[in-house]
Amino acid sequence: VIEAMKEAIDAFGAGSGGSRNIGGTNHYHVLLEKELAAFHGKEAALLFSSGYTANDGALSVLAGRMPGTIVYSDALNHASIIDGLRHSGAQKRIFRHNDVAHLEELIADDPADRPKLIVLESVYSMSGDIAPLAEIADIAKRYGASTFL
Amino acid sequence: VIEAMKEAIDAFGAGSGGSRNIGGTNHYHVLLEKELAAFHGKEAALLFSSGYTANDGALSVLAGRMPGTIVYSDALNHASIIDGLRHSGAQKRIFRHNDVAHLEELIADDPADRPKLIVLESVYSMSGDIAPLAEIADIAKRYGASTFL
Repeated sequence: VIEAMKEAIDAFGAGSGGSRNIGGTNHYHVLLEKELAAFHGKEAALLFSSGYTANDGALSVLAGRMPGTIVYSDALNHASIIDGLRHSGAQKRIFRHNDVAHLEELIADDPADRPKLIVLESVYSMSGDIAPLAEIADIAKRYGASTFL
Repeated sequence: VIEAMKEAIDAFGAGSGGSRNIGGTNHYHVLLEKELAAFHGKEAALLFSSGYTANDGALSVLAGRMPGTIVYSDALNHASIIDGLRHSGAQKRIFRHNDVAHLEELIADDPADRPKLIVLESVYSMSGDIAPLAEIADIAKRYGASTFL
């Protein structure tokens, strides 16, 4: 990695030159996004400059641009998730940390035709707890919800 | 700069290892902040990972943590400023772009004892216009307002 960084500095110079939509995208970014997308078997990937901006940017768009979305957010989600959801303006329900029964209770109470987004972490950054991912994915399938991990 | 980057990679490895409050601060960050503070003749400086996060982070704290603050924001301020001010929750008045008379009109209308923050750019990122900084600094002094540039 260190050698690759030195080569990249020699080829592209120091710094990105600006935000991505101005002059901040170079060939390495595009190649890395393609590799990440292929690794996950997805159509595309998008790099952010930090985990904070990834959560803030992705969630404010995902939760904010689907009209009528209800978000179900784990009580111990990271501050960047809380900020992203707040910035989305979407309606939000908090389920007790890792409590699958509480999540299902909240989802079952809401209208079936509203878009739903379950937002959680895999390994919680503050406590180190691991989420019951399989059970939450089952609930998402049963109620037609999307998940954001 | 390129040689210094290579030396830094050799000395500290690739990447910061985390956010600054976990493991993301190294000696270079501290030295650069000291140098920036000395250059501006100020007590301290704080680095952000992008201009967007600098405006968002600094404004949500500055405008949000002084109780009762009224913000006066130029109509053509960058989106990162608009987001930061929105996230601060502070009361906000928009003055017409580079219109010093309109700014003064708005400020003169507000109670003298409320904290005031004038937020503007020096060279506007979208239009390239230059702000009438000296006149706006005069208004800030006259009405006891702070400025954020």
